[in-house]
Amino acid sequence: MIKFISTISLILFYLFANCQNQQNDSSIAASFFSKALTNDWAINNLEYLVTNFPKRLCGTKAASEALNWSEKTLKEIGADNVFRQDLMVVHWGRGAQEKGLIKSELFGKNKINVCALGNSVSTGQNGITAEVIEVQNFEELQKLGAENIKGKIVFFNRAMDPKFFYTFQAYGGAANQRTKGASEAAKYGAIAVIIRSLTLSNDTFPHTGVMRYDTNYAKIPAFCVSTFHADQLSNLLKKDSKLNLYLESSCIMLPEEKSCNVVAELKGSEFPNEYITIGGHIDCWDNSAGAHDDGAGIIHSMEVLRLFKELGIKPKHTIRIVMFMDEEMDQRGAKKYAELVEKNKEKHIAAIESDRGGATPTGFSLDVNDSIYNKVIKWQKLFNNYGYYQFIRGGSGVDIGPLKKFGVPLFAIMPDSQRYFDYHHSANDTFDKVNKRELQLGSAGIALLVYMIDKYGL
Amino acid sequence: MIKFISTISLILFYLFANCQNQQNDSSIAASFFSKALTNDWAINNLEYLVTNFPKRLCGTKAASEALNWSEKTLKEIGADNVFRQDLMVVHWGRGAQEKGLIKSELFGKNKINVCALGNSVSTGQNGITAEVIEVQNFEELQKLGAENIKGKIVFFNRAMDPKFFYTFQAYGGAANQRTKGASEAAKYGAIAVIIRSLTLSNDTFPHTGVMRYDTNYAKIPAFCVSTFHADQLSNLLKKDSKLNLYLESSCIMLPEEKSCNVVAELKGSEFPNEYITIGGHIDCWDNSAGAHDDGAGIIHSMEVLRLFKELGIKPKHTIRIVMFMDEEMDQRGAKKYAELVEKNKEKHIAAIESDRGGATPTGFSLDVNDSIYNKVIKWQKLFNNYGYYQFIRGGSGVDIGPLKKFGVPLFAIMPDSQRYFDYHHSANDTFDKVNKRELQLGSAGIALLVYMIDKYGL
Repeated sequence: MIKFISTISLILFYLFANCQNQQNDSSIAASFFSKALTNDWAINNLEYLVTNFPKRLCGTKAASEALNWSEKTLKEIGADNVFRQDLMVVHWGRGAQEKGLIKSELFGKNKINVCALGNSVSTGQNGITAEVIEVQNFEELQKLGAENIKGKIVFFNRAMDPKFFYTFQAYGGAANQRTKGASEAAKYGAIAVIIRSLTLSNDTFPHTGVMRYDTNYAKIPAFCVSTFHADQLSNLLKKDSKLNLYLESSCIMLPEEKSCNVVAELKGSEFPNEYITIGGHIDCWDNSAGAHDDGAGIIHSMEVLRLFKELGIKPKHTIRIVMFMDEEMDQRGAKKYAELVEKNKEKHIAAIESDRGGATPTGFSLDVNDSIYNKVIKWQKLFNNYGYYQFIRGGSGVDIGPLKKFGVPLFAIMPDSQRYFDYHHSANDTFDKVNKRELQLGSAGIALLVYMIDKYGL
Repeated sequence: MIKFISTISLILFYLFANCQNQQNDSSIAASFFSKALTNDWAINNLEYLVTNFPKRLCGTKAASEALNWSEKTLKEIGADNVFRQDLMVVHWGRGAQEKGLIKSELFGKNKINVCALGNSVSTGQNGITAEVIEVQNFEELQKLGAENIKGKIVFFNRAMDPKFFYTFQAYGGAANQRTKGASEAAKYGAIAVIIRSLTLSNDTFPHTGVMRYDTNYAKIPAFCVSTFHADQLSNLLKKDSKLNLYLESSCIMLPEEKSCNVVAELKGSEFPNEYITIGGHIDCWDNSAGAHDDGAGIIHSMEVLRLFKELGIKPKHTIRIVMFMDEEMDQRGAKKYAELVEKNKEKHIAAIESDRGGATPTGFSLDVNDSIYNKVIKWQKLFNNYGYYQFIRGGSGVDIGPLKKFGVPLFAIMPDSQRYFDYHHSANDTFDKVNKRELQLGSAGIALLVYMIDKYGL
């Protein structure tokens, strides 16, 4: 009988404790969101970052100054310690403003907005003038063969597919033109490539991004062209297939530079040697203020620390806020971080990345095993009141990706994606495109996820 | 045995038909969204409406021209018939640009951005100069009493509460200052009121809106002030409680004007006398282009018709697209529509309103009985792939609200609310604030809801 009563008591105690925990979690969730929504810290600091240090591509002075600012700011928020992880970065320079000019005997001269892709070689000061051949994909190139391509500029004009609801899928479906198009075209003797900008917006901004050369083929200059001008070029080509295109760029690969990741820690009270990493990348393209990509992710990450400090929450595990360097060009920051995790045998219980902009959050993607997924999905109801409606399985991000090989559970915040590629990698990614509340909701949601992982483990 | 086989066959047939229906519904859903996302009709027509007919407050020439445009456009889309519901509207005119000036012996003169609230009387050409008393709510007014208020300007400075996730709740919590503040203050002898703009943004735009007089008290002039200047005024008052405020407006109530709702129909093939109404309001404030409020709702509604026509779907019930006139001032369009529904004994099986902006849709609110809610909630999975994650019970909208007394099930689309009040009722509600894809997703979702209601009934 006593045994029976003990069992019943234990069960009741368990149920009570569980209920109390759930109440506490709801109340903590409300605290994170109300502290974020009633303080302009995030939007003010985003403004400071993107207006003082725009064009902070790795290797630039702006990147170095942004690192200094982040180090100072993380200390001010109250990190227990802030340190640097030294690394070397490539330093690609754009040089003078690029030129693009259509010369048609039928239609005269038309300037088009182009810019060099990151990592591209230059055209030389005399530029390149050649006929243009428009293709949609690599299969088409192969069919055309060297006899139709040699000596020409290849124009990759496959648009992102607007039918995808999640715009990152549309991006994924068009990105290989930009990353690999130059070498694919060089295979058949093309002398330059011009790529339709990866955006769903019809605008006059060229949207840049990194490209890679396959060293088996000649390195030819690679450009992107605004969607507006891509349509114009395509229309003119239909009427005058012999028109010439003039392209000029003076980009250059400079010597590598010293740089670093900046890491801030809030020490764990029980497991100081077990880490939860939260990060974004502090570099951005040199034609952009980098407000959504990835100023927002930097601010989200920093504000997690601010919210823990403001609420006086002492985590059990050490929380690390990482300002990753060089996501855009060669991911040296990501590689360095993973290298040090391995070298120092650090145990990472989770890593969370914010690199999909600062719009209204819709949820998280989880690159985790079944058992962790089943655990985390139970937390989702805590987030539902704040618009986080999806916890889906999928990839995480470029900066925490290298931690996957150590079995670290990876998470990424998923803001509403509809506008993201309107801004991405272009001069259109400015401060005014980020909304205060949408940004605040991101910080609070990540902070809540960190809190739950820290409290219950994975 | 034969009976048994028949029963089994019937069950199998039912299951098969049900499965086929679900497949068809998914496929129709995909069609609505892909047709919307691959056609710039919505954004181009929104641009036309808001750039050609801004400031289309009821009674104005712009409102009348917008009605003509909508009639022509609905015919072009292919409505079976388009007709007008004649009605009279009030015609309130703002007059010259309002003036607001703080005069402080300590701090000198400071201009502040103010504008008259809709329906307000004017100050007369000499304006009003008086001391200011700041309050948060009506209870505070009552405590202060006539001895502290008489002869002064009452400054209602209760901010919208940023802690609400859904910003319409924050709006609801602050709106009575604007709608009723003047008469509440006039009770105690105030000579004018100035209301903190109803926005969560810290900006320099005055956000107007309608106010009502209680005829038991003197009609005193009512203004709104931008949040930036409300903070400034409040700060100065803390240091100089005797400062004076000068307010000037020349608004006037003109004779009523003839106007109308414009109604377009797609005739039902089986139940032509049973209606599904979809609408937004074509009027907007006279200080605004009315892009989100409610250009977006007008375009959403029109595009439902366009999508049905493009997909060649012939509804069983008659679909009505309604351009409601005068939502902002006196809701004459809404009243007229309901009056005619009653007079003509029309059976309305559902009404759907879009009047919460053109941002990314998050779901629908349903003002329906339990049985309808339980039916509709089963359709939600069709919408989930397109970001419509909530079908919640709640109110619908001002224009379809009067149909509630006839038992009509009411629905409203719920776009993401985070940015909405940044624009609402101000000069900041311009075309560039609406995103093409976000708008398209709204049209497609409403069209899908209409399709499901038409197919399965409620």
